[in-house]
Amino acid sequence: MCVSPLTPNRISELGKAFRASKALFSAVELGVFTVLAKGPRDLETLRADVGVAERGARDFFDALVALKLLERDGAGHYRNGSEADHYLDREKPTYIGGELENLNKRGYPHWQFLTEALKTGKSRGDGYLDQYADQSVLEAITEGMTGGARIVAPGIVTKFPWHRYRTVVDIGTSQGGLPVEIARAHAHITGGGFDLPPVRPRFESYVKKQGFSQRLSFHGGDFLRDPLPSADVLIIGRVLHNWDVATKTMLLKKAHDALPSGGALIVYERMIDDARQSSAPGLLSSLNMLIMTKGGFDYTVADLSVWMRQASFYDLRVERLTSELSMVIGTK
Amino acid sequence: MCVSPLTPNRISELGKAFRASKALFSAVELGVFTVLAKGPRDLETLRADVGVAERGARDFFDALVALKLLERDGAGHYRNGSEADHYLDREKPTYIGGELENLNKRGYPHWQFLTEALKTGKSRGDGYLDQYADQSVLEAITEGMTGGARIVAPGIVTKFPWHRYRTVVDIGTSQGGLPVEIARAHAHITGGGFDLPPVRPRFESYVKKQGFSQRLSFHGGDFLRDPLPSADVLIIGRVLHNWDVATKTMLLKKAHDALPSGGALIVYERMIDDARQSSAPGLLSSLNMLIMTKGGFDYTVADLSVWMRQASFYDLRVERLTSELSMVIGTK
Repeated sequence: MCVSPLTPNRISELGKAFRASKALFSAVELGVFTVLAKGPRDLETLRADVGVAERGARDFFDALVALKLLERDGAGHYRNGSEADHYLDREKPTYIGGELENLNKRGYPHWQFLTEALKTGKSRGDGYLDQYADQSVLEAITEGMTGGARIVAPGIVTKFPWHRYRTVVDIGTSQGGLPVEIARAHAHITGGGFDLPPVRPRFESYVKKQGFSQRLSFHGGDFLRDPLPSADVLIIGRVLHNWDVATKTMLLKKAHDALPSGGALIVYERMIDDARQSSAPGLLSSLNMLIMTKGGFDYTVADLSVWMRQASFYDLRVERLTSELSMVIGTK
Repeated sequence: MCVSPLTPNRISELGKAFRASKALFSAVELGVFTVLAKGPRDLETLRADVGVAERGARDFFDALVALKLLERDGAGHYRNGSEADHYLDREKPTYIGGELENLNKRGYPHWQFLTEALKTGKSRGDGYLDQYADQSVLEAITEGMTGGARIVAPGIVTKFPWHRYRTVVDIGTSQGGLPVEIARAHAHITGGGFDLPPVRPRFESYVKKQGFSQRLSFHGGDFLRDPLPSADVLIIGRVLHNWDVATKTMLLKKAHDALPSGGALIVYERMIDDARQSSAPGLLSSLNMLIMTKGGFDYTVADLSVWMRQASFYDLRVERLTSELSMVIGTK
């Protein structure tokens, strides 16, 4: 019999994993990848360009090398790794660092209260409308959502039959990150996004900057009170997990009401595997909802399928979007 | 040519890695593994035993399953995974959770200031003597160090020729976690540990509890001012990285002074690879020193070898202790 000997390695690594998150967050915050997207830099130049003091500079940049975000050549010049260059350069439309900035500003500090949230079952978070009263929080959240939208956009753009539909409205659209990518990829699509009224200026300025003001417009409202706008396709992504089951099913019913016959609903989320055995990201996202929201939780494709069928959607199908996220498509 | 397509998966995973650390920390804090070491529990029993409210309980325990710390059988009973059972049950002498508790209480919140520390080059930490004025901090740090000592102990106990020596003193010993394991494995060894005077009661109570008071004693002092005690073998582990290079070399010189001719020095640390390309744990540990200490930094085996030779040690050799830590042995 061959039994591999026990080692504490994996536990130690899990316990220190937060340091790697923070090194990535600081690199995004300091603009390391945006600077290096302009060209390689030696240690001193990079240090000066991003405003890092001498003491920790070499360890910091070499840690980013070891994390495979940067590369360092034999002459000691740092350059972006290919993933970092594509996704973490603020000047590129593929930038997803907004999500990391939001995790850094809000997620990381809030997670200090995980034990308390587990003991009490209560979140420390306010509703979005309360949070949006603070402009800096509004910006952090909406840019974070744009980062999140860019992560799923390539999958949603390519794995849905957009040629069969003409209009789309993204529910909880934030800055409109997702409809912009759909409009960019599919020239016949028009529509826009629905979100709370304070988000309007963020949406309109982002959509204008991306050049889609003629095709995408903002619908202000509160989906807890108001009906949803109508379109051939509605998208509800990373929204349902914020709410308790009654609100989840109410929103699915409202989406069904708003769609024309033959219209489609796309729900995307960091889905938990049906057996609840393997998808750590989905289960940890659900604990994030425990910390951040009054009644939210993440769920499996099986859970969602039950709720969508209850709301009278049929012909449900699942498509994987990233290593963590999937979408379920239903037809009215 | 075959180029794998870019995906944001790895960046997203790094950005969320802190959640896995915190789930582990909360599980240790709540005693999940200690409870399950007594036997499997269903959801409701486990929840009641560790004091978790209903709302997050299932997601929390299932997240621990997905992180491979727990297992859940077909009847819904949770049990410890083999690593968790060995290393995270408080009742076992192999418990390393003290290090995780210290990371949770001190490391995680301090790392919020990484960007600031990078910009200023300055730590927020005090010296150990100042910190030890607070009994709860003294306990967190010393228990954390015992967890750390238990991680390296199996390697140090088996990969050093203890039969050739009779006495050992561990410098910066904290509760004496390491000399206890050496004494446990090698019945002919006596000695003890050296640390700041406030640590004495923690050392003496731990060593007594483990049954080694007859063979191991405490040497109180400040290695910045006082000479080191003499023994056939001195150990300096996870100490040098707390200090600037002048202090590092001074401590190595003091160790050389204190050893008899033919004596051995063991230095163990989370060593950075000589090329500074691959060992993220060592480089991130060095950033931890930036955050926590006035002048500390981690280093490579090549760096350490230079300093040890300068202090007149010869016949240097390296042994790997864990996936992250190594020891360098030198002879006087």
